[in-house]
Amino acid sequence: MGKNRLEAFSDGVIAIIITIMVLELKVPHGATIETLLPLWPIFVSYVLSFVYVGIYWNNHHHMFHAVQRVSGDVLWANLHLLFWLSLIPFVTGWMGENHFDTLPVSAYGGVLLMCAIAYSILARRLVRHHNTALQRAIGKDAKGWLSIAMYLLGIGLSWVQPWLGALVYAAVAAMWLIPDRRIEGHLAAEDNHNKE
Amino acid sequence: MGKNRLEAFSDGVIAIIITIMVLELKVPHGATIETLLPLWPIFVSYVLSFVYVGIYWNNHHHMFHAVQRVSGDVLWANLHLLFWLSLIPFVTGWMGENHFDTLPVSAYGGVLLMCAIAYSILARRLVRHHNTALQRAIGKDAKGWLSIAMYLLGIGLSWVQPWLGALVYAAVAAMWLIPDRRIEGHLAAEDNHNKE
Amino acid sequence: MGKNRLEAFSDGVIAIIITIMVLELKVPHGATIETLLPLWPIFVSYVLSFVYVGIYWNNHHHMFHAVQRVSGDVLWANLHLLFWLSLIPFVTGWMGENHFDTLPVSAYGGVLLMCAIAYSILARRLVRHHNTALQRAIGKDAKGWLSIAMYLLGIGLSWVQPWLGALVYAAVAAMWLIPDRRIEGHLAAEDNHNKE
Amino acid sequence: MGKNRLEAFSDGVIAIIITIMVLELKVPHGATIETLLPLWPIFVSYVLSFVYVGIYWNNHHHMFHAVQRVSGDVLWANLHLLFWLSLIPFVTGWMGENHFDTLPVSAYGGVLLMCAIAYSILARRLVRHHNTALQRAIGKDAKGWLSIAMYLLGIGLSWVQPWLGALVYAAVAAMWLIPDRRIEGHLAAEDNHNKE
Repeated sequence: MGKNRLEAFSDGVIAIIITIMVLELKVPHGATIETLLPLWPIFVSYVLSFVYVGIYWNNHHHMFHAVQRVSGDVLWANLHLLFWLSLIPFVTGWMGENHFDTLPVSAYGGVLLMCAIAYSILARRLVRHHNTALQRAIGKDAKGWLSIAMYLLGIGLSWVQPWLGALVYAAVAAMWLIPDRRIEGHLAAEDNHNKE
Repeated sequence: MGKNRLEAFSDGVIAIIITIMVLELKVPHGATIETLLPLWPIFVSYVLSFVYVGIYWNNHHHMFHAVQRVSGDVLWANLHLLFWLSLIPFVTGWMGENHFDTLPVSAYGGVLLMCAIAYSILARRLVRHHNTALQRAIGKDAKGWLSIAMYLLGIGLSWVQPWLGALVYAAVAAMWLIPDRRIEGHLAAEDNHNKE
Repeated sequence: MGKNRLEAFSDGVIAIIITIMVLELKVPHGATIETLLPLWPIFVSYVLSFVYVGIYWNNHHHMFHAVQRVSGDVLWANLHLLFWLSLIPFVTGWMGENHFDTLPVSAYGGVLLMCAIAYSILARRLVRHHNTALQRAIGKDAKGWLSIAMYLLGIGLSWVQPWLGALVYAAVAAMWLIPDRRIEGHLAAEDNHNKE
Repeated sequence: MGKNRLEAFSDGVIAIIITIMVLELKVPHGATIETLLPLWPIFVSYVLSFVYVGIYWNNHHHMFHAVQRVSGDVLWANLHLLFWLSLIPFVTGWMGENHFDTLPVSAYGGVLLMCAIAYSILARRLVRHHNTALQRAIGKDAKGWLSIAMYLLGIGLSWVQPWLGALVYAAVAAMWLIPDRRIEGHLAAEDNHNKE
């Protein structure tokens, strides 16, 4: 089965997720700076989540670029990932409206953790059925495991000092901002190897 | 007429339906576990509906994969299906906010029933005009008829004990979680047959 | 310039328009039939608008099917049509919440009128630059002119008896439910002619 | 890496942005002209933003039409542009609900300014890596620099008389309503040149 519709559907869902988050930025009743300023924690959490959803779209893009065909279990592993991504707007709003309080920051980290696990399951499914080049590219997936460890660290820190937890999440985002060059690099190398 | 735009439009509508349901999960005013817990029936109904819409997307994907061209009546049968799917967020929210009360659970089952009927009409239209391989694959559509019977059972049970109705709907979802292998299997068999 | 992205963007906007209308169906606070019944005018207006947006998507689909390339002014004529379509959720909600009162029914007809004019402008642009087969197919566009006359009639009638106005709009929708077979028929004839 | 998914994702996000703005036009509680009229500043700001987002889609379309492949940094430059575009619904609603007051008009101009800068960064990235034809077409980008200067002028004027600021933004929109014929023209010329 072709991958086009899976990509199109995922693009649609991710595009909606990234855009409806802005609806949490409720238009203030008043035209003064005093009415705007209380929105800043909501804005900060929006920026963080925009970057995270952007990273997932980006890596999703790279990963499926290396795949030609998908099977039924990949469709469901992909929907599982989209489910956890769809909860990001909820925890983003909750964290922002409560000024990065302990429980919302933990919940935010928990959703990020589930997204990371769902992404890892999807990657494994793709590797198992389809693509040895992808497998070599992902390798031991150290970056993925490090992310999961850091999410757990962030969740723990949020019970000490919530802002520390949020900072750890931001650090993971910064680590991923660079697109997954492992795949790009390895696949390019494969291509060259095959051509020789 | 090609099927590409019909698939793209359906993907768009289904992606929006599956994503706007999360807007019913209203961000609670407060950062405590006490403010979060009352959302659990809304969350449970969200998960159930996410799975259902995912199943419809999945089967829609499989069914149109087996089709090359579509005619005017297929466009309208498809819009008819999308109409009933578009009511899922409404009944999901109603069922969740009223803690799975009798009437909302019945209404939820009623919308699922109409979706199943609309899907069945669409499948018949596709079979009639286009595709004998699809026809053989769907066969007598026992799974479709069983689903309709179970929706009716669930609607009835919701007047006895609403949670039983919801459990029946969940059982139907579990039955469909496996993608329609009949189509996949038969078409693969057709392909092999044709190649010989 | 290719037409693919114009089609994809239009599909996206129309898919969102058709789906966000359901958000006007606010989840009632209560699980009784008494809390559900007051929604019926909103539901009726939703069904009417769903059919209208479906008709526009359908005819848009047919029209661009007959076109190979688009120029800059077609992009803008298309955005102009999307603008008027984007106001349909607003007038749908206004008409439904006010139980088909005079002014909302007039406004609804006014937006439908502007959509019809915008569609006609778009069709003319496409014919002028690109496609003589499309021109012959659309011909004198009697159905388009009749629709515009009926919208004006409906707007007028809404000041006598609003429900009459809404009925006229429903009649126009019924008239268009059949996809534009003129284009389909003529293009098929063209194809046959060319093949001979 | 191909550009198709980047285009599809951008189309999705831009389609959602352009459509959710209409949700700021809240359905009035009442069927009289008195309940409708207070919406006119929101409607005016909606029209202005619809045109702006339409311009960005249009120019995005033209720019990527001239490109064959995209690299990782282009994906992020594109997401950066989408981020600023995603803030347009917020500032549109704020400006409209406050009847074009000073601070909201400034903020609106500020978001437009950031969109213009993000677009310019994206164009530079594309030119650097990919396309000399695009480079010659964009040239010194006088129209882009003029827009940035006019946004700054509009932001300044909004502190004198907010409506003047909004008028300047409308003038920039009018200037861009004509699609970027530089690219279209130059690329057509390139094509002719190459064919000779």
